[in-house]
Amino acid sequence: MYRFEPNLRIPGPTHLPPSVREAGGRQMINHRGPEFAALLARIDRRMRVFFGTQQEVLLITAAGTGGLEAAIVNALSPADRVLAVPTGAFGDRFAKIASVYGADVTRLETEWGRAADPAALRAHLAADADYRAVLLTHNETSTGVTNPIAALAAVVRELAPEALILVDGVSALGAVPFAMDAWGLDVVVTGSQKAWMAAPGMSMIALSERAWLAADEARMPRFYFDLRDARKTAANGQTPWTPAVAVMYQVDAGLELMEAETPAGVFARHAACAAATRAGLEALGFRLLAEPAFASNTVTAAWIPEDLDWKAFNGEVKARQLVLAGGQGKLKGKIFRVGHLGAVNLDDILGAIGVLEEVARMFSRPTEPGAAVAAAQRAVLAAVEARPAAAEGVPA
Amino acid sequence: MYRFEPNLRIPGPTHLPPSVREAGGRQMINHRGPEFAALLARIDRRMRVFFGTQQEVLLITAAGTGGLEAAIVNALSPADRVLAVPTGAFGDRFAKIASVYGADVTRLETEWGRAADPAALRAHLAADADYRAVLLTHNETSTGVTNPIAALAAVVRELAPEALILVDGVSALGAVPFAMDAWGLDVVVTGSQKAWMAAPGMSMIALSERAWLAADEARMPRFYFDLRDARKTAANGQTPWTPAVAVMYQVDAGLELMEAETPAGVFARHAACAAATRAGLEALGFRLLAEPAFASNTVTAAWIPEDLDWKAFNGEVKARQLVLAGGQGKLKGKIFRVGHLGAVNLDDILGAIGVLEEVARMFSRPTEPGAAVAAAQRAVLAAVEARPAAAEGVPA
Repeated sequence: MYRFEPNLRIPGPTHLPPSVREAGGRQMINHRGPEFAALLARIDRRMRVFFGTQQEVLLITAAGTGGLEAAIVNALSPADRVLAVPTGAFGDRFAKIASVYGADVTRLETEWGRAADPAALRAHLAADADYRAVLLTHNETSTGVTNPIAALAAVVRELAPEALILVDGVSALGAVPFAMDAWGLDVVVTGSQKAWMAAPGMSMIALSERAWLAADEARMPRFYFDLRDARKTAANGQTPWTPAVAVMYQVDAGLELMEAETPAGVFARHAACAAATRAGLEALGFRLLAEPAFASNTVTAAWIPEDLDWKAFNGEVKARQLVLAGGQGKLKGKIFRVGHLGAVNLDDILGAIGVLEEVARMFSRPTEPGAAVAAAQRAVLAAVEARPAAAEGVPA
Repeated sequence: MYRFEPNLRIPGPTHLPPSVREAGGRQMINHRGPEFAALLARIDRRMRVFFGTQQEVLLITAAGTGGLEAAIVNALSPADRVLAVPTGAFGDRFAKIASVYGADVTRLETEWGRAADPAALRAHLAADADYRAVLLTHNETSTGVTNPIAALAAVVRELAPEALILVDGVSALGAVPFAMDAWGLDVVVTGSQKAWMAAPGMSMIALSERAWLAADEARMPRFYFDLRDARKTAANGQTPWTPAVAVMYQVDAGLELMEAETPAGVFARHAACAAATRAGLEALGFRLLAEPAFASNTVTAAWIPEDLDWKAFNGEVKARQLVLAGGQGKLKGKIFRVGHLGAVNLDDILGAIGVLEEVARMFSRPTEPGAAVAAAQRAVLAAVEARPAAAEGVPA
């Protein structure tokens, strides 16, 4: 059956709502003028709510990876001892950036698909806590696992109180509760093309007071990503270099929608879409990668069954305009991923599960018509009932 | 008199034509899919014409300053001897980036407002030619001077044949003839919000074969800006990190317009608008900053007369929706600048000169109604007659 628009189910760039698309087509303004200053201030103010911080949220014209590099080079000096806690390809990338800039990186490994374990971190730090920084990934996009940042950070604060906690929050911040200040985090990074419903091109970053002090002493070379310049110019309503103005228009429009929906509404919508995705995929016989207790509310990874010709299967899926993501790093060719973040509604998920049902039938896989979609719908009801109470420091 | 739209006469971001605005509002696509690969290939192919190169043109999600940093860190190692030839604030910035990353930078100074002098460069290199790289600025945005890159590069090639020539081409490439390969340049950088008529957020960069060899040996730390990754992934129709997709849509749409106009048409339009701007400002009694032989075709700087209350004057200008740029660095408060690049037409320039005439009358400055606009129009006729023949290696 012909479909008029693709169902873009990758974990970013995400589908743009109408008002965000309109914002992307706006005329340019002077990035040294008052209209721009108001835009910058508005994004900062609204972003703080989702970061859970009273610090200012600064903008960098770069992909999320550029934001991660900014986190590293502003906090650290060459030869600093750094503990990386990778749980997938993006955790590896964060560690690699630190190594490239000369940090002395120790890795606390976690099996891909599992969350970083606070007890393992405790054991490691009990033996060796002499670190300048700990690198954590909030949501590991490559595996669909959301790490327990609050618990991990609490262990660091207890056993390595001087260590800076740098968090890759690129692919879930804005979609799930987060509390930078309450959890004692020092640097948090996110990206415009994820929960924020905008095109890629901007990275948002916030630093604790402690991190700002560290930035003054850090000796890794930096120019474009020097956040001291970003902070100084932000005080005058500007950015140090010409920013991606149209992406800022879009982030601003996305935040307006998120404010209207309320953070609690945004979080509940993501939780429901995630529950529907997981249940639908399982009903289709796919085995999920992520440890269930830490399954991500923004992206779900599933194993490709050994007896399935994925290329042919995904070809039929693509022909129906459903766009899925593949695996990354050592999971390439072994898993596929379904993005459910940003401007996602249950309709999109039920539609995607419907397409997968249809294609599964073509490949003679067990599929009672409607069963997977029904499972997805049932999971939503369960998710709504299980909705947790608000936690301390988390926006509601 | 009420105006419905601002006349954005700053040297970037520039006014977006209708098809570029439409492109900015398009829906997202998978940046790892075939549609994206076609987009990337199309931009590369069309950019090469304006770079004057057979090398591939790579995309970086960053402001032009990020592109300059990419040029430095991919070509150089700490302690490398570098000759910077700054002619204004952006030349200073290029030199500073090299210093920050540990290069041993020597500066060959030029008075701001003048072009770098090939004879001075010859004298310098005759005494000391032991440089790994020479940093040149094609068009110095802060002074409105276009440096004679071909002549400067020829001197480097003769006296320091091993030195890499790195060129900041951010604010004029695409608007004036350029021939990277024929002039023997090694790294050339530009930015989406200048002649390309798109929003800011992307930097475009090309490297000579020699520069690619240098990139393999360069030891300045780099991750986000590592162009080896960009080249490797471009071969598969991708970028290493999530790119600013919507800005790419816009660059693509801008290049489509530029291809239809033809490079020669684009260059002639810029030459005409520049001539009109200079003549109009001079007829209003403003003294221009740039040495006439090297006056830029993309931005014009004029001195603020000592007896003029610029804040009040510019307030009236702004009230008429004409947006000018101020001075930068040591020229702050001393000059103002008029941008005439990208989607600029003679109408925009005549309108701007008309507004300046109107405001000048308010400030009791000598202004025969219509005289400045007429001077601008006469200059266009002269510019069309004086149009030079095509030069070797330059697109037509």
